[in-house]
Amino acid sequence: MKLLHTADWHIGRTLNALSLLDEQKHAFEQILQIAKDEHVDGVVIAGDIYDRAIPNPEAVTALDKMLREINLENNIPIYAISGNHDSAKRLNYGREWMEHTNFHLNTLLKEAFTPVETDEAQLFLLPFFDPIDARVYYKEQGLPDEEVKSITTISDAMNLVVSDMVKLFDKNKKHILITHFAVTPHKDEEIDLTSETTSKVGGLATLTADQFQAFDYVMLGHIHTRFASPSETIRYSGSPVKFNIKEARLKNKAKGVDIVTIDDSGITREFKPLTPKTDLIVLEENWQTLCDADFYKQQPVNKDWFAITIKDFDRSEHIQTNIRAELQKRYGTIVELDYQVNQDKNDLQHVAVNINEISPEETVDKFFQTITGKDLSTKQKNIVETIFNEVEREHK
Amino acid sequence: MKLLHTADWHIGRTLNALSLLDEQKHAFEQILQIAKDEHVDGVVIAGDIYDRAIPNPEAVTALDKMLREINLENNIPIYAISGNHDSAKRLNYGREWMEHTNFHLNTLLKEAFTPVETDEAQLFLLPFFDPIDARVYYKEQGLPDEEVKSITTISDAMNLVVSDMVKLFDKNKKHILITHFAVTPHKDEEIDLTSETTSKVGGLATLTADQFQAFDYVMLGHIHTRFASPSETIRYSGSPVKFNIKEARLKNKAKGVDIVTIDDSGITREFKPLTPKTDLIVLEENWQTLCDADFYKQQPVNKDWFAITIKDFDRSEHIQTNIRAELQKRYGTIVELDYQVNQDKNDLQHVAVNINEISPEETVDKFFQTITGKDLSTKQKNIVETIFNEVEREHK
Repeated sequence: MKLLHTADWHIGRTLNALSLLDEQKHAFEQILQIAKDEHVDGVVIAGDIYDRAIPNPEAVTALDKMLREINLENNIPIYAISGNHDSAKRLNYGREWMEHTNFHLNTLLKEAFTPVETDEAQLFLLPFFDPIDARVYYKEQGLPDEEVKSITTISDAMNLVVSDMVKLFDKNKKHILITHFAVTPHKDEEIDLTSETTSKVGGLATLTADQFQAFDYVMLGHIHTRFASPSETIRYSGSPVKFNIKEARLKNKAKGVDIVTIDDSGITREFKPLTPKTDLIVLEENWQTLCDADFYKQQPVNKDWFAITIKDFDRSEHIQTNIRAELQKRYGTIVELDYQVNQDKNDLQHVAVNINEISPEETVDKFFQTITGKDLSTKQKNIVETIFNEVEREHK
Repeated sequence: MKLLHTADWHIGRTLNALSLLDEQKHAFEQILQIAKDEHVDGVVIAGDIYDRAIPNPEAVTALDKMLREINLENNIPIYAISGNHDSAKRLNYGREWMEHTNFHLNTLLKEAFTPVETDEAQLFLLPFFDPIDARVYYKEQGLPDEEVKSITTISDAMNLVVSDMVKLFDKNKKHILITHFAVTPHKDEEIDLTSETTSKVGGLATLTADQFQAFDYVMLGHIHTRFASPSETIRYSGSPVKFNIKEARLKNKAKGVDIVTIDDSGITREFKPLTPKTDLIVLEENWQTLCDADFYKQQPVNKDWFAITIKDFDRSEHIQTNIRAELQKRYGTIVELDYQVNQDKNDLQHVAVNINEISPEETVDKFFQTITGKDLSTKQKNIVETIFNEVEREHK
């Protein structure tokens, strides 16, 4: 069987107040075309389908249309899970009607233990969950209180979940896991996750590749760049669209989907690139260069979007200039404008952190650092993370 | 064919911060049992399924379960529309999958012009809409700009909508309309709507029975008491649950659903009452009576909920008393506590208006009255209504 693996659509997302919906629709059309051309037996969407627990009505309408085109108009099965950005309970609405046309959408941990069975494979659809969900589930399953209490990290929980899935394995089939977590190649490994809600490195929320060795192939969501995949068979598809400047700065920034072929001889994977409608161009130059026609006429001006950092900038020399307006005249859409000032580096005003690009945990960390000059201790970090998890749960 | 007519479930609603979900589930179980006992060919839910445009996750989960029980577990078709409390775009999600099992849910005006066809009848499912929706729809339909502009009231819009539906009539079938509006028996008639968002009487948002004479039967939602039905064939089913004190005060307060039988000989209707799990008891007595064991022991104390108004109350005599605690000791759950003070009636502090029970338009009206001593003019009222409509639209 052939599956198309995609993830992290984040429908409804904005980039500094600019809607990305047109960009997302453009990517979707290419994904649908690839699915049709390749005659796939299913489209896997590995979580973070929406950008927010309460997506706006335009996002709801847009997603509904995309899913209909795949599943109802083209009769292609969908294998989907919710991610940390989705509201499990909201996205669960209507799920049982969707199964009538082979649109499988799991949003709750308990749903993950009924694999979808095909001739060649068992597909385990494991949505994003947190240790509290796992405790509730295992308490309901009758696990002794002591063992339930010992589930403190997501890693503890995942070991239990995987061992329960292994019990369901059919030896004659391949075993595919679809899930939504940060997975590193090895313990304590540091990777740049580029998933703006968990750019945290390692830590409580991270799993390691060896925890998934029971599966023949793992299709992941959560991290937005495919180059962060922990192994040849444990893969991130990456998001179909670039969501932030940080990602636009990466060298390996190709976006796309994987076509995964599963048969008796094994599992093979082929990357299919997607072309952006509007690319995101990062420029870091001084004011003179930026205003130089020889320079900017070489750029895709009035077509792509620009994130511009003006280097060695001295505001006092341009006190009469509307900087943004001058740059817009030359480049078109400026999604982000930053100044790199060549002065005292310790000056608080010049800490160039875009809080849209870092997680709430990092924001607290950086604030603590700025004020006290020290990093948060591991214990303090855990407390901060627990609080944010709880706040997030309350809003879902 | 036999249809069960219900409306205004308002799943997720609270009564002064008390969740009504248990009460709503209790009513639902009775509705489902009636549907099964009567072997109905469909359950009609005439709008305001949720209480809010963005229902909380518990409400989403509860409704999903109810709809599954009717449609998937008992194979009973559902004919539903969105009301003014629902978000049309959010509720629209998944709609096309639900049609596979005869769960018909219209939330957009344009969807109302494809009636559901049964052997005996054409069912027109017309969701709540406002004049702006009608203008957008008729502009898309190619109606000349002048005529589009002439749609200013909901009444203008409804006349166009009904005449377009009449064009689709199959002469050999009965014509049933399912919709969600305030409909009065005659022009300029005043009715107590008891639908807390439109207790306004008459006015821009009201339609009259004669506008629906083309239909053999009209199943309405919006007004929460069935006794407000404008005619024998244009019917409100009322809400299955009492939602406010105002309604608990009504003499004819029986709650229930209608079983509507449609055949060649005509259309008949039978009322099926629902029993509340917890009733809402309104008491208006003086402090002495309320504290008298002979009085309160006759009440369903510690079982039902009480809304108590203490008459002729002089706070100075009870300065040391925790009034609410004293009453709770005797009665159990007090959902509302009011004081009727026998002093200067013009004293602002004693204007006993519960703003949870009146519409935003009325709130503005009463405030204007209190401050200026005058009523809002019709023009002013229209402006206020337009503003609230726009605010509401932005939040859906």
